[in-house]
Amino acid sequence: MSETLDVIIVGAGSAGLSALRQVRKRTQRFVIINDGHWGTVCARVGCMPSKLLIEAANAFHRRSTFEEFGIHGADRLTLNIPDVLRRVRRLRDDFVASTLKTTEELGERAISGHARLLAPDRLTVNGQELRARNIIIATGAHPVVPSSWQKLEERLLTTDTLFEQETLPSRMAVVGMGSIGIEMAQALSRLGINVVAFNSNQAVAGLTDPQVNSIAIEQLEHEFPIHIGNEADLEILHDGVQVYAGSTKVMVDCVLAALGRRPNIENLGLETLGVSLDKHGMPPVNPNTMQIADLPIFMAGDANDQTPLLHEAADEGYISGINATHASLVCFKRRTSLAIVFSDPDISVVGCRFQDLDSEKTLTGEVHFDRQGRARAGQRNKGIMRLYADAENGRLLGAEMCAPAGEHMAHLLALAIDRSLTVQDILRLPFYHPVLEEGFRTALRDLAAQLPTGNESDLATCGAFDIEALD
Amino acid sequence: MSETLDVIIVGAGSAGLSALRQVRKRTQRFVIINDGHWGTVCARVGCMPSKLLIEAANAFHRRSTFEEFGIHGADRLTLNIPDVLRRVRRLRDDFVASTLKTTEELGERAISGHARLLAPDRLTVNGQELRARNIIIATGAHPVVPSSWQKLEERLLTTDTLFEQETLPSRMAVVGMGSIGIEMAQALSRLGINVVAFNSNQAVAGLTDPQVNSIAIEQLEHEFPIHIGNEADLEILHDGVQVYAGSTKVMVDCVLAALGRRPNIENLGLETLGVSLDKHGMPPVNPNTMQIADLPIFMAGDANDQTPLLHEAADEGYISGINATHASLVCFKRRTSLAIVFSDPDISVVGCRFQDLDSEKTLTGEVHFDRQGRARAGQRNKGIMRLYADAENGRLLGAEMCAPAGEHMAHLLALAIDRSLTVQDILRLPFYHPVLEEGFRTALRDLAAQLPTGNESDLATCGAFDIEALD
Repeated sequence: MSETLDVIIVGAGSAGLSALRQVRKRTQRFVIINDGHWGTVCARVGCMPSKLLIEAANAFHRRSTFEEFGIHGADRLTLNIPDVLRRVRRLRDDFVASTLKTTEELGERAISGHARLLAPDRLTVNGQELRARNIIIATGAHPVVPSSWQKLEERLLTTDTLFEQETLPSRMAVVGMGSIGIEMAQALSRLGINVVAFNSNQAVAGLTDPQVNSIAIEQLEHEFPIHIGNEADLEILHDGVQVYAGSTKVMVDCVLAALGRRPNIENLGLETLGVSLDKHGMPPVNPNTMQIADLPIFMAGDANDQTPLLHEAADEGYISGINATHASLVCFKRRTSLAIVFSDPDISVVGCRFQDLDSEKTLTGEVHFDRQGRARAGQRNKGIMRLYADAENGRLLGAEMCAPAGEHMAHLLALAIDRSLTVQDILRLPFYHPVLEEGFRTALRDLAAQLPTGNESDLATCGAFDIEALD
Repeated sequence: MSETLDVIIVGAGSAGLSALRQVRKRTQRFVIINDGHWGTVCARVGCMPSKLLIEAANAFHRRSTFEEFGIHGADRLTLNIPDVLRRVRRLRDDFVASTLKTTEELGERAISGHARLLAPDRLTVNGQELRARNIIIATGAHPVVPSSWQKLEERLLTTDTLFEQETLPSRMAVVGMGSIGIEMAQALSRLGINVVAFNSNQAVAGLTDPQVNSIAIEQLEHEFPIHIGNEADLEILHDGVQVYAGSTKVMVDCVLAALGRRPNIENLGLETLGVSLDKHGMPPVNPNTMQIADLPIFMAGDANDQTPLLHEAADEGYISGINATHASLVCFKRRTSLAIVFSDPDISVVGCRFQDLDSEKTLTGEVHFDRQGRARAGQRNKGIMRLYADAENGRLLGAEMCAPAGEHMAHLLALAIDRSLTVQDILRLPFYHPVLEEGFRTALRDLAAQLPTGNESDLATCGAFDIEALD
């Protein structure tokens, strides 16, 4: 058996690479092990290729506004799906290449193979046993596919295979209306594919505010049908796939499974760590240190199933990388919660979710974008933003929205929530004219009107004043 | 002579209406006087119609990206300028109508006519003399047109007349590359008009950072020529207008004068107030109270030539309205400075301008958007953002940028600057992936790398940590 390493990183995705960056600063006695393709899920099959597909789809969809703008000939535009997919892969390859650079220069310290833990300080890979003072597990996750669906073979797609297609058929079902399902269903529909979508429960896109949820569904249903409330069952027929959900029966050419992702922890040997695993086989992981129980093992990114988002995975890799190379354990405060679905309008949840708030102690302010000036000018006037504030002190706690430029306003909201700002604090912001952020201001004013009022001398001495709507 | 009123508001534009809203809450003994069209400059000939034109132009321009996306037939799209202008006016009329509602219900308290001050508490309108305890002057501004250009008649346009055109000629000069000039030149060019632009000085769009300025000019020059550094002279010929600037000579069909706006203070009787007027005839106006000297007269909006922007005009109307009806003078803290030019990419100046900072005490961080991931996905990868921070404590002081989604990031920056946040504070923000705001983060990291470093225990105890770039 070889020397004891300082750190073994298992997994070279976004979390593993982020950990690697910290580990390398402090020791050269490490290895990184990766099973399957090198390159991150984000760049290969996640964030980036999906956004490439969405941007093309949205560019094409914009033609529906042309006649109203005074632009003619939109009906003569055609979209070539093989061309779209070729561009997706070309830029995707470029993004993947940049994630590969780091590990390519590592030589023997980058190992291809499946790692299996033997103990908290040992694992085996390619028949070789490795020992390390600290181990970081960042094995990622894979798309959930019910085992009975495997028989669909090439008629079943996931994001692992979608972007590899040379072309796409004319009828597709998307099962699951989480972030990936919504983004892909809308993009495929906008590319001209007849999409039909299914979601087993009432809530889509991670929304918990029923009003925002129903407006989000309503917006999407203008573009493709969504069957909600029943599990989808599939039956393969000679000319396609029959999708059943409740009393609905739809024939499609293929199915995109978007049922979420499951951590890659099978056959990883977590049971050898001597800690109790939950019913999914997951050990306890401290979100502020990423440590598993009190062991010198850390678990970061989608593998730990806590917050499977790129920026959180990168943070968790960072925390793991620090803690795997630091004399004493460092405890990190995590960031304000932020999730964005890149649909149109964007769907976003920032800070506290509606369902986690005490309705007795919370005020809600809202704005509908259908009459908002700038949104009307750009023919993007749809959607809603709902803000939640502490009824006692006016602090902004969270927001859920389905709104134009929502991805941008979500960052503005995240900053306000992170800094514990009150509604009045935020109303001191200069809101330019005409911008979509004036819609955000309308929702803030809706909240302000419900808060105990300050008097005018407060207004003057603190300098915090707000102007009323002009438009 | 009639009773003494509490307040006379002169001007029913954005500032006047904002003042009216405050005045009405406290007294019914007021009148509002308006000369010429009722309805705000913003809705009639400013912010709103310009944005309507820009949105149509940008929608049409987007076709230049279609082939790369895999969308074919872009060359068969045509834009009908009369249709575009009809839509501009249709929506514009709707925006104007909403600004008219307030004054229409005032009956005799809304007076059409030209007001002329007789003394600090008296004025004349339509031959009638009115007296008031307080007067608010909010007479707005008008486009600057050199007197020698008047002879061009219908070959000379300003924003007062541009949107009234049934159609537009094929060759247009835009003189002046301030916010209005840039917005209209780019929009007209994108509508298919051969635009040539002129600016007498080196700086455009209110930019003071030479690097941002040169990138902004470079971006615009991909679309239309800009002649910089010479005053434009015009000569009317039988088949058009010859524009001269330095050694340049260009023939066009008409000229859009975008040389700025001048306060409407002529023949207003300001000389009767007994205060000293500056060389432009402007009295001293306190920006925190809007008071003229120590008189019971207030001056708000474009009329005072301080910050001719809608949101500032509305604030100034608010301040004037409060102070004209309040027993003692209230002093207001003004908002963080924010200016946005709705070009593509957007041009924006937030907080302190580059030229107003002490370079010895300021750090600069920057990002170029040409390699930014999300910008590349959307074929919007151009532009630059430059951030300025206090070299001692890392507080963000200001920014100038020409960047995709700049109008949104400008609000995020304004909030950070308003709250006196440091670079490290802002880096605690969750930056989602992939978003344009990650470009902002790159510029923040550029600054952070120049700041004195904190140690790891600081990192942990304060909880403010940042992750490094993955992409």
